[in-house]
Amino acid sequence: MRIDILTLFPELFPGPLGESVIGRAARQGMISVNAVDVRNFANDARGTVDERPYGGGPGMLMMPDVLMRALNSVRSADSTVILTSPRGEVMNQRLAAELAAEKHLILVAGHYEGVDQRFIDLAVDREISIGDFVLSSGNIAAMAIADAVIRLMPGVLGDDESAKEESHSMGLLEYPQYTRPPEFQGLKVPDVLLSGDHGKVAEFRKREAEKITRERRPDLWEKYLQAELKEV
Amino acid sequence: MRIDILTLFPELFPGPLGESVIGRAARQGMISVNAVDVRNFANDARGTVDERPYGGGPGMLMMPDVLMRALNSVRSADSTVILTSPRGEVMNQRLAAELAAEKHLILVAGHYEGVDQRFIDLAVDREISIGDFVLSSGNIAAMAIADAVIRLMPGVLGDDESAKEESHSMGLLEYPQYTRPPEFQGLKVPDVLLSGDHGKVAEFRKREAEKITRERRPDLWEKYLQAELKEV
Repeated sequence: MRIDILTLFPELFPGPLGESVIGRAARQGMISVNAVDVRNFANDARGTVDERPYGGGPGMLMMPDVLMRALNSVRSADSTVILTSPRGEVMNQRLAAELAAEKHLILVAGHYEGVDQRFIDLAVDREISIGDFVLSSGNIAAMAIADAVIRLMPGVLGDDESAKEESHSMGLLEYPQYTRPPEFQGLKVPDVLLSGDHGKVAEFRKREAEKITRERRPDLWEKYLQAELKEV
Repeated sequence: MRIDILTLFPELFPGPLGESVIGRAARQGMISVNAVDVRNFANDARGTVDERPYGGGPGMLMMPDVLMRALNSVRSADSTVILTSPRGEVMNQRLAAELAAEKHLILVAGHYEGVDQRFIDLAVDREISIGDFVLSSGNIAAMAIADAVIRLMPGVLGDDESAKEESHSMGLLEYPQYTRPPEFQGLKVPDVLLSGDHGKVAEFRKREAEKITRERRPDLWEKYLQAELKEV
């Protein structure tokens, strides 16, 4: 998969996308992450990419012609164009899995007050929001989307189990985990985890995951119960 | 406000937190963002910070003693300790505003399969998730939380109106916006925005914001209607 990120801050990339499992996937040639500097497609020599909105109001908007030229420099028939936007579909694990099947993602990191609506109408396939909070630019949102998508591509995670067991993959929050030392500041690792009894360990973990999901996220708990009912 | 980020990848910071309005706030001394390299607090010369979980299973956990030493290097009575975690409260604009009133945030960027539960029990004030999707590490989540919080601090945004008008601040998604050129690839800016009639512009924007919220986010629309009713 190739991922292009249209941004005013190309120096921020690969950034976190160059580290850890994502960085490894890039070095192995499984993915390529490329930042496109929108300012290179400006209308004038000063690099103007934004203008005040028609109708007034605070802030600056990214201009549609500038963005379109930047987009056309990397777009092909295989491209899916995504704009990071607070108005978009809310990112979740199902959406990440869907995008992991694409060949070429172009992430447009929205900036300032937003982008001209005509660019969205003409060129954007999906608007995605990472949550109901406001960021000072779309760069961090683009990083989050790219990271969540890339790690779901086949072969990116070293241990396939790793993805499966993680939070949200089963519809439950993750159970508590413990590692060395066996006692830390008076707190001991639960006995069952030291027992070597795999059945009891699995039971303990399921019970704890259910408990924490019920307590913290009644919305996920409801969905989990409905999915369990369907399976029976 | 001071923000310390406990991370295995200190070179990722300030990263996006050094750009744009957040970077300006740092240069003006309104905030200071500092990365703490957890590996400096490892148990051995090789820099070991993680171990396999008790009870088996994939992946590695961050060790509680290592994290605690890293935390204690920056913690004071004024500190609020936040762990980025898929099990946490889901980040939103209300939570960002709450955290913007704190003096000192310590963000622990979770990594690998997670962190030892005893560190959470002993030292973490809040667990925060940026959404129902899995990231390969907590670094991007820490960036998102810090960015959303910092921009809400008084004086950080140049134009106070800017924060007010943005998506989610009013409980509605943002209306479409337009800038130059007046015609782009056959699409014109809506006449009302060129009319100079401020009342009509405001009416158009409110109607469009309501329409897009109703269509895309029935959950936000319900909340908005309830808030409107209370005001009447």
